[in-house]
Amino acid sequence: MNPDISRERENASFNLEILTNILDGGAEKTRRRREIESLVIGDPDFQHEDLNFLSRSERYDAAVRKSAQMILKLREYGISDPEEIYFYKSCVHRGRPEPLDLHLGMFLPTLLNQSSPAQLEAFFMPAWNLEIIGTYAQTEMGHGTHIRGLETTATYNPSTQEFVLNSPTISSIKWWPGGLGKTSNHAIVLAQLYTQGKCHGLHAFITPIRCMKTHMPLPGVVVGDIGPKFGFDEVDNGYLKLENVRIPRENMLMKYAKVEPDGTYVKPPSDKLTYGTMVFIRSMIVGESARALSKSCTIAIRYSAVRHQSELRPGEPEPQVLDYQTQQYKLFPLLAAAYAFHFVGQYMSKTYHRISGDINQGDFSEMPELHALSAGLKAFTTWVANAGIEVCRMSCGGHGYSRCSSLPDIYVTFTPTCTYEGENTVMMLQTARYLVKSYKQARAGQQLTGTVSYLNEPQSRIQPHSVSSRTTVVNINDLASLVEAYKFRAAKLVEMAAKNLQAELQHSRSNEDAWNNSSIDLVRASDAHCHYVVVKLFAAKLSEIGDTAVHSVLSTLALLYALHGVAHNSGDFLQAGLLSVPQLAQISQRLKGLLSELRPNAVALVDAFDYRDEMLNSALGRYDGNVYEHMFEWAKKSPLNHTEVHESQHKYLKPLRSKL
Amino acid sequence: MNPDISRERENASFNLEILTNILDGGAEKTRRRREIESLVIGDPDFQHEDLNFLSRSERYDAAVRKSAQMILKLREYGISDPEEIYFYKSCVHRGRPEPLDLHLGMFLPTLLNQSSPAQLEAFFMPAWNLEIIGTYAQTEMGHGTHIRGLETTATYNPSTQEFVLNSPTISSIKWWPGGLGKTSNHAIVLAQLYTQGKCHGLHAFITPIRCMKTHMPLPGVVVGDIGPKFGFDEVDNGYLKLENVRIPRENMLMKYAKVEPDGTYVKPPSDKLTYGTMVFIRSMIVGESARALSKSCTIAIRYSAVRHQSELRPGEPEPQVLDYQTQQYKLFPLLAAAYAFHFVGQYMSKTYHRISGDINQGDFSEMPELHALSAGLKAFTTWVANAGIEVCRMSCGGHGYSRCSSLPDIYVTFTPTCTYEGENTVMMLQTARYLVKSYKQARAGQQLTGTVSYLNEPQSRIQPHSVSSRTTVVNINDLASLVEAYKFRAAKLVEMAAKNLQAELQHSRSNEDAWNNSSIDLVRASDAHCHYVVVKLFAAKLSEIGDTAVHSVLSTLALLYALHGVAHNSGDFLQAGLLSVPQLAQISQRLKGLLSELRPNAVALVDAFDYRDEMLNSALGRYDGNVYEHMFEWAKKSPLNHTEVHESQHKYLKPLRSKL
Repeated sequence: MNPDISRERENASFNLEILTNILDGGAEKTRRRREIESLVIGDPDFQHEDLNFLSRSERYDAAVRKSAQMILKLREYGISDPEEIYFYKSCVHRGRPEPLDLHLGMFLPTLLNQSSPAQLEAFFMPAWNLEIIGTYAQTEMGHGTHIRGLETTATYNPSTQEFVLNSPTISSIKWWPGGLGKTSNHAIVLAQLYTQGKCHGLHAFITPIRCMKTHMPLPGVVVGDIGPKFGFDEVDNGYLKLENVRIPRENMLMKYAKVEPDGTYVKPPSDKLTYGTMVFIRSMIVGESARALSKSCTIAIRYSAVRHQSELRPGEPEPQVLDYQTQQYKLFPLLAAAYAFHFVGQYMSKTYHRISGDINQGDFSEMPELHALSAGLKAFTTWVANAGIEVCRMSCGGHGYSRCSSLPDIYVTFTPTCTYEGENTVMMLQTARYLVKSYKQARAGQQLTGTVSYLNEPQSRIQPHSVSSRTTVVNINDLASLVEAYKFRAAKLVEMAAKNLQAELQHSRSNEDAWNNSSIDLVRASDAHCHYVVVKLFAAKLSEIGDTAVHSVLSTLALLYALHGVAHNSGDFLQAGLLSVPQLAQISQRLKGLLSELRPNAVALVDAFDYRDEMLNSALGRYDGNVYEHMFEWAKKSPLNHTEVHESQHKYLKPLRSKL
Repeated sequence: MNPDISRERENASFNLEILTNILDGGAEKTRRRREIESLVIGDPDFQHEDLNFLSRSERYDAAVRKSAQMILKLREYGISDPEEIYFYKSCVHRGRPEPLDLHLGMFLPTLLNQSSPAQLEAFFMPAWNLEIIGTYAQTEMGHGTHIRGLETTATYNPSTQEFVLNSPTISSIKWWPGGLGKTSNHAIVLAQLYTQGKCHGLHAFITPIRCMKTHMPLPGVVVGDIGPKFGFDEVDNGYLKLENVRIPRENMLMKYAKVEPDGTYVKPPSDKLTYGTMVFIRSMIVGESARALSKSCTIAIRYSAVRHQSELRPGEPEPQVLDYQTQQYKLFPLLAAAYAFHFVGQYMSKTYHRISGDINQGDFSEMPELHALSAGLKAFTTWVANAGIEVCRMSCGGHGYSRCSSLPDIYVTFTPTCTYEGENTVMMLQTARYLVKSYKQARAGQQLTGTVSYLNEPQSRIQPHSVSSRTTVVNINDLASLVEAYKFRAAKLVEMAAKNLQAELQHSRSNEDAWNNSSIDLVRASDAHCHYVVVKLFAAKLSEIGDTAVHSVLSTLALLYALHGVAHNSGDFLQAGLLSVPQLAQISQRLKGLLSELRPNAVALVDAFDYRDEMLNSALGRYDGNVYEHMFEWAKKSPLNHTEVHESQHKYLKPLRSKL
């Protein structure tokens, strides 16, 4: 054990295990998570060479092997709780996506939720037993966010009782679905349904794409891998071009909408039924933001505790990098954000489960709020975490750039969350639509509930005042007062956006133009709303914590999170008259004080995330702090070191000399 | 040609060629650059498969092959002007680093500048003819920024007249030098010189590391590749462990410092002589920031012009993504920054050449200013460009994540500039040291020159005022007035940092502690100073431009750059009393107006950067806008598509079925 990092741990002011239990949601959950981790990490079937040293084809191969093993073992051990499956899976693949993700996470659930009983009978068991391996083919080369724009067609032919599927243009080629390129033999294809000469919009079709025996593409099917990406090397994201592919009528998913044998179209009873899945996935992504950021902070903070650099005091040894104020200022606010997002993720997951109970009872009343919140928080947290991972990487200096730090992998694996399941700007605008609607309702005297209820509060409190003429509302040492300030900032920015939108409506060609011309303001309002929700939920979490020492350190983190956000958005707070100019200087000083307060607990706070070395897979973030030894061992295994002399010496450099 | 992008070009209000000439520094330079590009791009010796489809070893191999060809051809064509060599090289390697970079860019120049005449005789021609291939081994595993902390030792033994080189600890292993792993047979090793029992600090030693005949490592030399990184796949960044490696006394570079045969140490006449190179490289990096950002903007803006999405107006076709205000707000400020940094790069390069003339005359007077400026601007521009590339990538939606967009490659190639040649935070603090020193001189009544001369201006103008009690200084429509505002903001933040530093000194253990405890403020002051310099230089450039149409569009860009910066740092401007709250709302509106004004010229403004398709290597950024066709062609070549059925089907998935 590196002595620097041992000393850090001795300095911790709180009991680590208590905090870990809070993060896991209880001591029993911690125990079970660790049990599952040990099960996987000790399993020889899941061992393999460092993925960084393999080609993409080898990485895909290793991932398929592990996924196949995983399915066997999950059934063997009888692990069926979704959360436990999640632990097991992320342990097997060390947080990386894998080729069967879409089969397990989209194909099977969609079959379950949208099949008629006869379809369930026909397709579910073969899919459960992986005779059918499927994916979910929605996105096309030319169409992502706006799914109504999808071009793939499914035209019903009553004489053969078949649908004929086509990709009529190059932009209609299905593009991106995971597992589509090489792994799957079926796809649920989203296509515009045509029957009796009319288009009825998007419907889902179970489409065989490869032969069940030979795995060769079926006639009319052009399918393949879309090529290397920033990350996701283990996944065969694919393309699919359909040329007059015929499937039986029974392959349209018909639990809700139907096409009768004669081609008569029967509408689904409600549009809201598939609404929940999106909300669920976006809520999960908030948790992913917390995980990606907490892993990155663990690596950067542990490394900063063992890395020494420069002179702080002449004659004394080089100090730990973690002693530099600028380093603390980079990392501790991100550490605070990681905790904040963790608690927000817990809240979202709990709320989702509560509300989905209501939905099953046919009560959709809280759905719009949850939909707006999950969209906005997905965008808010992924943007912060995305940028934060890179700050962590760069805070490790050059070594952060090595694949041995694991930070490049965390980044490339995480960054698609800003784009998939709803592009972030589009998400922010969805939240804004809800905020503007709520604002109008509040102005019309309607009583709002949930996170937007502040829009009901008297406007006088959030009128702009000149700083000198009002008493200050914010006590910068009081978290509750800061929550209020965030609330008033959000109210102010929602109001501004709504008023700008109103003004645009006076001289715009259409509502849509007015919306577009206000969209910068609308995104800003959503961002402020989400920021308020995060600060509020962090503060709320504190009240649940009984242990004094843990409560104390989390309070410091929460205050840091809140004040750091005020400092970085000081213009908003000054503009809204919530802050005075002298207070800004006080906040700067207070932030420095909070960094110093957190310094002794920094390593313990990342230890509490409880990532095993095998999960971090980072030479810099090792628990024992023996960074350099492990970097050296790792480097020796680099494929370029398999031979002492690379063949390019003989092929190019030696011959060159004779020519010069 | 895609009709959308053709229409964009028809809408341009200015003559492209005039702007390209301004960017190149004259029509003749444009002509010559294009000539060199054609020379390389048409050359069959430089053709190769898409690097994204190759393994790292294959990529290294391809790079060595091209570098060898390049050296032959540069000499054959007689290209010797450094700028022309740069064009040729970046064209051969398409902007990527290559294995001989350190040999050409550090080893040869260091030999030239620091060798005694006898050493030049002995080493230079063999190195010029690539019999000796060398690198520059400074950074160690445990020591980067603080070079005085390097641990490698070179101990002189007068009885054999040799130096004995050692890596005494694991942290002293040389780590990172490009070309060290596999390519080089020599290294200039930076080591602590010991002679006659005393340490004389760092000196440079020409150290043979591999056999000139077999290329095998020499006795006592442990050398290899440090393993895969985020990018730089073509470069064999290496490690070097020295175990009692003996080199002749003549291998210490002795133009300045010397060790006599008996071991007597002779000091160098001045420390400042090696100062210039660092400044030069940092100035070059400012230009790299401009290039990386302008390439990214070219890709993102062209793609946004051909990509259609969603409905703006019901019933009308999906609009170009570039018509969305939020998309413009992401991309146009970055486009403006790319232009700004380009002009700053031109200024830095000109200033460097002017001042290095003075230095050769022994006049170092302007050196501190240039040193501070190059450090700060290196950090300022690389941070902005680094984040900006990722904004461009994500603005392309999912497709930006594909390697075919080239944006991942631009990012991973560029991002090390934030770390190497001086870690950015350290750079900002170096600039801050100069600013604080200048501030004190100004307070002491000394007349300052250069970019810091504003610190002489009367303090009354930059006292904090309450917003209501002062007349506003900023005219938000006038660039000159905004330059003034940036100046006062910088003055204010330098003053605040200096005063905080002064206050810290009252109750700190040492000057160093006080400095550390003020470092957040100091970085902020440097950032504001650099921001001021960039706005000022952009404005200054406008006055040189004769063509009315080009002047007009660049003025719009400059105003956008300046106002966007004010909006994003509004707290500073409000705090300094430079802006009123109502003005903030006006700025928001004005920014939207500027986005609309720029919209018709957006594609032309990126076309003017004049990147050939071969240089961008991006399916999304193609000049002809035929994005989807080329994505499809590219994907088909993916190595995973070399066989229809991946072997993992037979190895793992088929057997799995029988077990379930």
